[in-house]
Amino acid sequence: MKMLEDRIRKDGIVREGNVLKVDSFINHQMDIPLFREMAKEWKRLFAGKPINKVLTIEASGIGIAAIVASEFNVPVVFAKKSMSINLDYNNYETKIQSFTHKKIYNVIVSKKFLTPEDHVLIIDDFLANGCALMGLLDLAQEAGATVEGIGIAVEKGFQQGGELIRSKGIQLESLAIVESMNSETGEIVFREQPQQN
Amino acid sequence: MKMLEDRIRKDGIVREGNVLKVDSFINHQMDIPLFREMAKEWKRLFAGKPINKVLTIEASGIGIAAIVASEFNVPVVFAKKSMSINLDYNNYETKIQSFTHKKIYNVIVSKKFLTPEDHVLIIDDFLANGCALMGLLDLAQEAGATVEGIGIAVEKGFQQGGELIRSKGIQLESLAIVESMNSETGEIVFREQPQQN
Repeated sequence: MKMLEDRIRKDGIVREGNVLKVDSFINHQMDIPLFREMAKEWKRLFAGKPINKVLTIEASGIGIAAIVASEFNVPVVFAKKSMSINLDYNNYETKIQSFTHKKIYNVIVSKKFLTPEDHVLIIDDFLANGCALMGLLDLAQEAGATVEGIGIAVEKGFQQGGELIRSKGIQLESLAIVESMNSETGEIVFREQPQQN
Repeated sequence: MKMLEDRIRKDGIVREGNVLKVDSFINHQMDIPLFREMAKEWKRLFAGKPINKVLTIEASGIGIAAIVASEFNVPVVFAKKSMSINLDYNNYETKIQSFTHKKIYNVIVSKKFLTPEDHVLIIDDFLANGCALMGLLDLAQEAGATVEGIGIAVEKGFQQGGELIRSKGIQLESLAIVESMNSETGEIVFREQPQQN
């Protein structure tokens, strides 16, 4: 999506170690008018799919998910992270490794809010190694829900998450895919995506 | 707000110890069309205020804040919880005690995203003892930002948070104020608020 790529070039900050900071408009301060344009683009890319719910994970995915759900006119369910083992049998549960925070989280979603009747669109801000997405796919599978697609704001195309998800045959629409970044020059190269606006 | 009170009566679950579960429509599954109506009501209640930013705290406040920000056409900044001491001087920092989780969190917001130029509307899902709100007010004060008002979905009117905030002269608009609950009968009594729809 050209608008998002342009914004990343303008306001994204490239740091050593392939770190891309987009906290001025995506995941600390959130540019809601931009999110609305992103939501419209996903609406176009997932047109015709019987999506009845948006699924995301706390915390930084929730803002984008809420605006996407408003565009689709459906509810959001967000999976919750917990450091403690949960013995509540009313939840589906999986584990997600966070490389950023060097922790393993238990991630739960209530059995009441994810069921075999659900056709979900998974939304998240970032895709790198794919650990968070694989956890959400686990939860959807446990629940017997259908995953109609996945929408990601920024994918790091040089990490394996995107390939892992696409190899499963799931429609994955990342609105910006970073192929490479240079922390010295600040240059960012995006993958071409001809089907996108 | 009658629509929210009706929904709490219908889908809220009263548990022993004055616990009110609204996780089917507010803070695990989020009813986005309902959030849009709530956002319109806050737009009416805070009409004329020069609000340029919505401030909230992760995680369950983010969804409502995003929809409210969309109605006001402004960005959201969410304060982040952290269990570790943060030595980054680029952040404002405060401490918030969580009675639910029996922990003290460090809560931070980047100095880049909260400044003396900001006129913020604080949004959160729940107000009980007021600890989270007092923390957000601390952060706004550290930043020199103006708090134009506070919007809360559900206030527990029998706890001290609401009185604490109102005694500071801040415009606090809770769309439903629970005066009392009965876990045996499930009955919920709301405070009358004549200025609200």
